[in-house]
Amino acid sequence: MTPEFPSCTDTGLLAPGRGAADAVSETGDPAYLRALLDAEAALTRAQAALGLAPPEAAAAVTEAAEPDRFDLRSLAARAAGGGNPVIPLAADLTAAVGAEYGPYVHRGATSQDIMDTATMLVAVRALGPVLADLGRAERALARLAAGHRDTVLPGRTLTQHAVPTTFGLKAAGWRALVLDARDRLARVRDSLPAQLGGAAGTLAAFQAYGAPDPAVLTEAYARELGLAAPALPWHTLRTPVADLAGCLAFTAGALGKLAVDVLTLSRTEIGEVSEGSGGGSSAMPHKANPVRATLLASAARRAPQLAATLYGCLAAEDERPAGAWHAEWEPLRDLLRLVGGAAGQAAELAEGLRVHPDAMRRDLGRTRGLIVSERLTAVLAPVLGRARAKELLTELARRAHCENRPLRELLEEHEELAGIDLAEATDPARYTGFAGILTDRALERR
Amino acid sequence: MTPEFPSCTDTGLLAPGRGAADAVSETGDPAYLRALLDAEAALTRAQAALGLAPPEAAAAVTEAAEPDRFDLRSLAARAAGGGNPVIPLAADLTAAVGAEYGPYVHRGATSQDIMDTATMLVAVRALGPVLADLGRAERALARLAAGHRDTVLPGRTLTQHAVPTTFGLKAAGWRALVLDARDRLARVRDSLPAQLGGAAGTLAAFQAYGAPDPAVLTEAYARELGLAAPALPWHTLRTPVADLAGCLAFTAGALGKLAVDVLTLSRTEIGEVSEGSGGGSSAMPHKANPVRATLLASAARRAPQLAATLYGCLAAEDERPAGAWHAEWEPLRDLLRLVGGAAGQAAELAEGLRVHPDAMRRDLGRTRGLIVSERLTAVLAPVLGRARAKELLTELARRAHCENRPLRELLEEHEELAGIDLAEATDPARYTGFAGILTDRALERR
Amino acid sequence: MTPEFPSCTDTGLLAPGRGAADAVSETGDPAYLRALLDAEAALTRAQAALGLAPPEAAAAVTEAAEPDRFDLRSLAARAAGGGNPVIPLAADLTAAVGAEYGPYVHRGATSQDIMDTATMLVAVRALGPVLADLGRAERALARLAAGHRDTVLPGRTLTQHAVPTTFGLKAAGWRALVLDARDRLARVRDSLPAQLGGAAGTLAAFQAYGAPDPAVLTEAYARELGLAAPALPWHTLRTPVADLAGCLAFTAGALGKLAVDVLTLSRTEIGEVSEGSGGGSSAMPHKANPVRATLLASAARRAPQLAATLYGCLAAEDERPAGAWHAEWEPLRDLLRLVGGAAGQAAELAEGLRVHPDAMRRDLGRTRGLIVSERLTAVLAPVLGRARAKELLTELARRAHCENRPLRELLEEHEELAGIDLAEATDPARYTGFAGILTDRALERR
Amino acid sequence: MTPEFPSCTDTGLLAPGRGAADAVSETGDPAYLRALLDAEAALTRAQAALGLAPPEAAAAVTEAAEPDRFDLRSLAARAAGGGNPVIPLAADLTAAVGAEYGPYVHRGATSQDIMDTATMLVAVRALGPVLADLGRAERALARLAAGHRDTVLPGRTLTQHAVPTTFGLKAAGWRALVLDARDRLARVRDSLPAQLGGAAGTLAAFQAYGAPDPAVLTEAYARELGLAAPALPWHTLRTPVADLAGCLAFTAGALGKLAVDVLTLSRTEIGEVSEGSGGGSSAMPHKANPVRATLLASAARRAPQLAATLYGCLAAEDERPAGAWHAEWEPLRDLLRLVGGAAGQAAELAEGLRVHPDAMRRDLGRTRGLIVSERLTAVLAPVLGRARAKELLTELARRAHCENRPLRELLEEHEELAGIDLAEATDPARYTGFAGILTDRALERR
Repeated sequence: MTPEFPSCTDTGLLAPGRGAADAVSETGDPAYLRALLDAEAALTRAQAALGLAPPEAAAAVTEAAEPDRFDLRSLAARAAGGGNPVIPLAADLTAAVGAEYGPYVHRGATSQDIMDTATMLVAVRALGPVLADLGRAERALARLAAGHRDTVLPGRTLTQHAVPTTFGLKAAGWRALVLDARDRLARVRDSLPAQLGGAAGTLAAFQAYGAPDPAVLTEAYARELGLAAPALPWHTLRTPVADLAGCLAFTAGALGKLAVDVLTLSRTEIGEVSEGSGGGSSAMPHKANPVRATLLASAARRAPQLAATLYGCLAAEDERPAGAWHAEWEPLRDLLRLVGGAAGQAAELAEGLRVHPDAMRRDLGRTRGLIVSERLTAVLAPVLGRARAKELLTELARRAHCENRPLRELLEEHEELAGIDLAEATDPARYTGFAGILTDRALERR
Repeated sequence: MTPEFPSCTDTGLLAPGRGAADAVSETGDPAYLRALLDAEAALTRAQAALGLAPPEAAAAVTEAAEPDRFDLRSLAARAAGGGNPVIPLAADLTAAVGAEYGPYVHRGATSQDIMDTATMLVAVRALGPVLADLGRAERALARLAAGHRDTVLPGRTLTQHAVPTTFGLKAAGWRALVLDARDRLARVRDSLPAQLGGAAGTLAAFQAYGAPDPAVLTEAYARELGLAAPALPWHTLRTPVADLAGCLAFTAGALGKLAVDVLTLSRTEIGEVSEGSGGGSSAMPHKANPVRATLLASAARRAPQLAATLYGCLAAEDERPAGAWHAEWEPLRDLLRLVGGAAGQAAELAEGLRVHPDAMRRDLGRTRGLIVSERLTAVLAPVLGRARAKELLTELARRAHCENRPLRELLEEHEELAGIDLAEATDPARYTGFAGILTDRALERR
Repeated sequence: MTPEFPSCTDTGLLAPGRGAADAVSETGDPAYLRALLDAEAALTRAQAALGLAPPEAAAAVTEAAEPDRFDLRSLAARAAGGGNPVIPLAADLTAAVGAEYGPYVHRGATSQDIMDTATMLVAVRALGPVLADLGRAERALARLAAGHRDTVLPGRTLTQHAVPTTFGLKAAGWRALVLDARDRLARVRDSLPAQLGGAAGTLAAFQAYGAPDPAVLTEAYARELGLAAPALPWHTLRTPVADLAGCLAFTAGALGKLAVDVLTLSRTEIGEVSEGSGGGSSAMPHKANPVRATLLASAARRAPQLAATLYGCLAAEDERPAGAWHAEWEPLRDLLRLVGGAAGQAAELAEGLRVHPDAMRRDLGRTRGLIVSERLTAVLAPVLGRARAKELLTELARRAHCENRPLRELLEEHEELAGIDLAEATDPARYTGFAGILTDRALERR
Repeated sequence: MTPEFPSCTDTGLLAPGRGAADAVSETGDPAYLRALLDAEAALTRAQAALGLAPPEAAAAVTEAAEPDRFDLRSLAARAAGGGNPVIPLAADLTAAVGAEYGPYVHRGATSQDIMDTATMLVAVRALGPVLADLGRAERALARLAAGHRDTVLPGRTLTQHAVPTTFGLKAAGWRALVLDARDRLARVRDSLPAQLGGAAGTLAAFQAYGAPDPAVLTEAYARELGLAAPALPWHTLRTPVADLAGCLAFTAGALGKLAVDVLTLSRTEIGEVSEGSGGGSSAMPHKANPVRATLLASAARRAPQLAATLYGCLAAEDERPAGAWHAEWEPLRDLLRLVGGAAGQAAELAEGLRVHPDAMRRDLGRTRGLIVSERLTAVLAPVLGRARAKELLTELARRAHCENRPLRELLEEHEELAGIDLAEATDPARYTGFAGILTDRALERR
């Protein structure tokens, strides 16, 4: 009978950022249940493969390890007693397997072996769709970068127009971050290990049951699951969890950069980009909110602190710790989910982003030409001397602002500048530096 | 038709720390749905109370606002489009109310009005059981403190025995933290406001619909819900959320102190306390794990970073922000839940804690008497001079350790100390300072 | 002789945000040294006041406790040995006092008594200027709110123009947060306690030296320092530190809200406000960076995680912990400093902020009138029916955007709207709701 | 003249954890000043190498870029104006170089180019000693693991004795974490790039001054400094900073695991290890505090949240951000310092750690034989059947505890077990599983 347990089922009501990402469905309680059962079944199979259990036991456990047969709510309720869900799960699975082969369920293992292994399985399974979504985002950003290689817009620093840049370079930068994230996630995913240590990391029970060598057993187990085989049991050597924390926080932040830029460029006063399908407002029919970017920005605000909790759990005492391990479960799942949702949002955002070069061109004129003042300093210095050039530009900047006149017009009143091609020197599109070359080279990265 | 949405239902499989706490069931998606509907209905009723809507509309909305009529999974899926669940909920509620009074649903409000108000309702509802559980914990700790007022055990600093203390003082300290938490939570709970601002915090639509004064409307709305009436709409003035973050992180940490002490005192080598119902281990029948303390320690590791995310969301731009608001929802819920579960665990832990004075007495002897060396310094100084007293004690400490002999025995070999009552001076139970008085006074606090 | 120690003196090179704030100078190593010495001297004086030490000892310690006589660098180096600076400081102070009264230095105390007390002194001393700077900020914001009570600008939500609001209401909101911060800081400041517990919190040594009652001694000590007298020694009951963490993180975040708004409103494309003294750029003479707001935003990004570390330290084991205490020192100082600098920057920012109502007026027109679409829905509904009104406005919003024509012009082409005063209905300045009243009432708060 | 500036010089009074680590001196303001000047000089030299500046200018700047000539306090004070220290530094350096070659100082660069490059230099310089200290720690831990390959002690899980393990395996695990940290730090260190982008990342000014290609210039610059050449300017693509955050937080946590284990094993009741040079206590001559471990544990509590701040700064808007960049400086320095100090402490701790096998042996007996109950289950099951074996052991565990008798004695009373070699089956030293083999293999890693 299931103990009384509060009804706090969640279905994502507070998590619109998850969207329809495949990665997210890999992180629900059902996905964990499946992974826990996969870990149990793999352990029996690995023992059978080494002759430590009869093949029939492996078959029986594998057959019984069917998620639909188990009651998630009951498992959750009974997890409270011993502090983890593997204890009731192993009991239920043993019962499901029956008297003959039941003793081969969970044999030699500690709860943490199964829980950690399942967590790594969940991570691997969730990272597949994440990498796919990042791939979509990367390709869309590459198209934007190539297509807007020479689309000029204001470069902004500390919120102010500085010098011109190109949208191609901006998009190439976003893509570089996505590729950095992809590389880090893929590297960590390929390193994630199975866990097998027994009660205190010596694998003593497995030896007692006849295992000839720890590596052989661990490798057989890992092979069943498609995970890496660890050099040591890692009950309190939490490198895999910390590595996940790092690359997931990085990914959320990398997509956060894309988000904050899109939010800025989407502002009503700027309008240089807009999301493909803006969020509407019931009361204000004209509004098209940058919802994807908003949800990405939200994820980027949360991920770092979740990663901090996981880094903090490295300091895990003894052979298995009282709290540091338990504190990992939900934050790691939350991180996988946040990043899973964010990768999906980023792919949609990048694929749907609409770019408005005319608005960019308009904005280049907002400073009445001052956006090229750095260039003018360089152009005027040989003629006027560096000090005088700066002085003149500072003065004209002030006048351009106060008198609301274009800088070029003010410069043309200065006869000593007659020899300078002011039309060319004041054209923002002629002062994008190496933006084009940088974009081209960045796009060579695969 | 419900859009396709990943199945990531959670039932608490990864959250054994929630236990059976009532507070936890107040934070599930169903509880949020109820609060959102309560907020919508209250808004229509408040308008009706001011004559801005027909009474029939208020009745119709209140009747329709029945959680069972709404499909959580569908709402969650449709929340992704506009970035929050209120948009589809208001649509569904409007449809449920029907053509005549439907226009009075959500009238004048922005999604954030409803979402923030519902969040405050959830917080108030969850904090009730939290305060009740803290009350249980506090009373149990008071009993422990009173009952063990004079039970002596080693005071430990930087992991080493320092001087004796009493278990009563320890329990009184735990209780003081619980009371500090209770006071902070109760104060914040009583201050939590309803939210009403309309599209950008000016309540303009309400004015357009005939509201004569912002305060009157807001107060009527808050009164319907039992929340405080805010001086200003607080869409981006997030004091209430930050206050919750602070008192919840404090509570988790305060209970974490209890937890780490119980974990230490429960160690196999110490065994001065044990949990009433230890968690068992399938493979090791002798083990009785301090599971409550473990889960409390786990919560204490997570809460601070969740609070940090919420403090970070104070920096919310504009009239309603793009991300800072959305990033609050899940961390605040997680905090309420963590603390809800922790308060329940703490109550059980405190009520069931078994104290072993014999083990404490045994441990007082572990340093062969050196635990009273501070006292001996004071006692010997008048006889030997301070410098010589220190020197002698350092020497005897070394010998007591190397020769494995009690310090008292070594002291008795020194004739110049003949005038000192060494039995009394070396008795740890006679060197507990003001522990008793401090305990008594601490227990006077209510 | 001073042991070899790495030269890592810091003078603030990486901390431009500190500015010239008085609070900051209260948090340097010299200020801590002074506070540590004040705590030592007060302890001897308190004992003298109770007759537990000769008055001459109190005078001698007070005289010797002169910061200039102590070598900070040497103390820092020697602190490594025992893990805290009080051990070498007490030794140096004892030597400075001399043979006769030296024994009365630090008598009965543990290092943590002095360190915690000094930390509370530093906090009190730093919070004075913080509160003064917040007072300056608050008054300047009140002037802005009153002066711009009716200055209309676009209300922005999720980066998009929503409905009009007023700059007065915006400034009143900033001020409300500053007042919230002030109230929380002042309350916590007035509660900060001295620390006195002796080796393990029982005050046993003080009793051994003749103290008749713990409260009397602790109160005498606290009185000497102007701190509160705690009910219990709080070596591991860290409520005061957590309370500081909370109110400091809140303050940084509250000022961060001001900062992100100023950053947005300062953008080149918006230009509705500008900082009084913008930061220049050597290469770009036209740039005037919002440096104050940038530094405030930077502080708001850091404070929450520092607070998280402090909340995490609540879980401090035993009578005095091995790490949780040590981990508090620098983060708490950093928080005080960050907030100290931020309060100064906020005062300067608020006092110098230049407001540009013409730019605000210009921006109200950016959506070609759509900023009042919420109002138009309300105005048109009685004439056209709610559904038709929405439909028409959505259509005209699209046309206004595509044809680049004002919404009013498009509306005027619809004969069925002839009875509506479209000039009035489309005037953003006529749709600020209760902004004025809300501002007035908010300014009543003192 | 230096503007008035608060005196908040720090020398490490609150940072005993820094110890004498070489890494720490590489992170002080003087070290940053040196790195900033190195970056400026390298920039001029790189331009000279490409023929964009006269060789004499390179020589003049290099000569002038001598830290002793600059006033740190003044630079810090003047940094407040523009929000970073490069602005006053470039001015002072230009003045120092003189009229002729002054114009070649900082030419084409933005402040962030210099600041970021200097930060990477500081990181590289600080990580050298960190890696050396980790090497010392690793070698000492390898010696401990090899020397105690077969030293048996209780394996502890959730604070309770579980099954025996070996100190060799424990030390091998600590070493594995140190090697993981070393690998991650070394990889990141070798990837750290110079920064060169000019005002908004297009390198436009460098092109204006004649640079033919961005890669050639950037590579020349990076070569001068021994840093990597980035593919793109990374003003807002903060992968290098996030990578540093991750590997530094990992290192602090990895050393934190060593620390919490040493703290536990050092407890008065356990005493299985002790630090080589314990911290003393003035009042309690017998105390030998585990100070190194305490300071390591303290660092592990702080690092994750500092890393979180840095991950949060990935979301940096525009071409150069208003706050996200500024918020990185101190946390990154703090992380480098914390880890620098921690690596030094860890080396000392590992090199000096004293191991007490007799105490370990004694502790193996604390459960009166129950520490091998897992083994006994396996040994008894074939004789009694699994269910009966468990039942019997549970019963005897209870009796062993209550009657305070050894489990072996109780087992010997059962005639049906006569065929079992109970002496062997109950010997903890015969139940260490694969601990020895795992240790050997772990030590093969270099």
